[in-house]
Amino acid sequence: MSLRDIARLAGVSVKTVSNVVNGYAHVSPETRAKVEKVLAELDYRPNLSARNLRRGRTGVIALALPELDAPYFAELSRFVIDAAAEHRWLVVIEQTDGDLDRERRVLDGVRDHRVDGVILTPFAIGAEELAARTDDTALVLLGERIHDGPADHVAIDNVRAARDVTEHLIGLGRTRIAALGAQDNSASGTAPLRLAGYRQALAEHGLPETVAKVERYHRAEGAAAMAGLLALDPRPDAVFCFNDLLALGAMRTILAAGLRVPEDVALAGLDDIEDGRYSTPTLTTVAPDKAELARIAVDLLRQRIDGRPGQPPREARAGYRLVPRESTLGR
Amino acid sequence: MSLRDIARLAGVSVKTVSNVVNGYAHVSPETRAKVEKVLAELDYRPNLSARNLRRGRTGVIALALPELDAPYFAELSRFVIDAAAEHRWLVVIEQTDGDLDRERRVLDGVRDHRVDGVILTPFAIGAEELAARTDDTALVLLGERIHDGPADHVAIDNVRAARDVTEHLIGLGRTRIAALGAQDNSASGTAPLRLAGYRQALAEHGLPETVAKVERYHRAEGAAAMAGLLALDPRPDAVFCFNDLLALGAMRTILAAGLRVPEDVALAGLDDIEDGRYSTPTLTTVAPDKAELARIAVDLLRQRIDGRPGQPPREARAGYRLVPRESTLGR
Repeated sequence: MSLRDIARLAGVSVKTVSNVVNGYAHVSPETRAKVEKVLAELDYRPNLSARNLRRGRTGVIALALPELDAPYFAELSRFVIDAAAEHRWLVVIEQTDGDLDRERRVLDGVRDHRVDGVILTPFAIGAEELAARTDDTALVLLGERIHDGPADHVAIDNVRAARDVTEHLIGLGRTRIAALGAQDNSASGTAPLRLAGYRQALAEHGLPETVAKVERYHRAEGAAAMAGLLALDPRPDAVFCFNDLLALGAMRTILAAGLRVPEDVALAGLDDIEDGRYSTPTLTTVAPDKAELARIAVDLLRQRIDGRPGQPPREARAGYRLVPRESTLGR
Repeated sequence: MSLRDIARLAGVSVKTVSNVVNGYAHVSPETRAKVEKVLAELDYRPNLSARNLRRGRTGVIALALPELDAPYFAELSRFVIDAAAEHRWLVVIEQTDGDLDRERRVLDGVRDHRVDGVILTPFAIGAEELAARTDDTALVLLGERIHDGPADHVAIDNVRAARDVTEHLIGLGRTRIAALGAQDNSASGTAPLRLAGYRQALAEHGLPETVAKVERYHRAEGAAAMAGLLALDPRPDAVFCFNDLLALGAMRTILAAGLRVPEDVALAGLDDIEDGRYSTPTLTTVAPDKAELARIAVDLLRQRIDGRPGQPPREARAGYRLVPRESTLGR
């Protein structure tokens, strides 16, 4: 069965069939559906491995992130896999654990020529090292920002999102608002952006700041840092945690101490992971548009893979929204 | 730099260097470390893509599961990726959403010859269809059981684990113990195994059964099914949910109704996802040994890929333990 036969059956050109089979973008959804229907009826299975090799491609991209078992990354990965499937790409997942050596290996081509491009959420690696990278595999940075990094990058506006959360807590009459999630050990720059947004809102209202640091964004560290905040006198009446996992850990500590959320301490997070929709109380958070983040990252990577080398890096923004729930509003 | 040079520097045979570079299993950890140290010092980067092609291999395996954003699968995927890395395998993740067509496509070779083997957690596909499979890509079933399926399979003893949970609830003096998580729509057979274990324990103590069905194992369905159980008169004094997500959804419903866990309704789940360690109350559960499940699945796949065709399928078991927490014991 040749492409010509398939084109005849689908009533489209051979070129169009080729575009669909190769996963190229410039085919309308209707035409694509028509061709795929014929392909499915004919049980047509291209040997993509051989074809990709001829094109110098593997048809596989890597998604490298700190940890797949953090719900935010698991949810984001789902969307990246879905977006990549539209280009017939398979997605290999590499976990770096935020470890500098493992991030270097991802960036440094130890992927052994088995992937066409990499979407990376960096944690430990810095701008200087990224700029000095010699491997020319297409690269897109997702979420975490490396300032002035020489790579395409997509994220939400972290400063504005953090300011929105803090404004929300101020609007509820809270005056001793702590931030939980500042970091000394990450080069990625997201924590400083969220801290900056928090500080902007406090400064506008002349309120004092209290900042708790953590090394990683896990429940256990949120729980431990919250114990430190509860020991302050006076203790905070609201806490903005820089992600939902930290907030859920902090919630556990507050409730286990016999205090109430939000009556004694209001709590907000960021990420909108599903856990926070079913906790008691439910968790106020910022919902990044994860589907949009994934779609933009995959689109940028596609353009980078298909494009000419040396094109300047681009910055892209995905949307977000504040989602107030019981942990600040009460029941 | 040839394998011979590397062998000389590492003080091992050329064959051993070859075994390490190719990710074969029969090299001692110490010897492997010695060779990898030399490889790292020399910045030796084999073009695995070309080498694998010569061997008829891609060096990539697929992990196909219903949904990456269910915490159990995300946690399990982490361990599968780690275990696969020991064989220098990359892991492509495919999400089936438990959809029959998508499971068929995974099993049917639409992976386009891009993977050497598949680890599949099936949901919708049945034994008959699995037996009729024509694609000969190496296959291992993980977790969910397809009865008499013609493929290697690894899981925990689901009947015994469910019986252990139910015995735990009976031991605490509960007498109206409901099961939440029976399924009509899955061909995979895990729900019936857990139901069987629950029934065995009740039968031994002459207690009546109450069974709530769901379609999928999500928080939302646990929350909805729990509302149905609370409407019973008398309502259950304990609920064994067939996974932790269902239990966390159920917990939300109970607490939102103004009832207490465990005083009014004791709750237990299964999976030991991290969420349940930080909920209030913390969640009693069964902890499958996820690292062992992943390691066995990868080992079985390795043997299947390297072995001769036609070898009979094998059954393997991973361990588990009951983890009693506040949702049954109280604080």
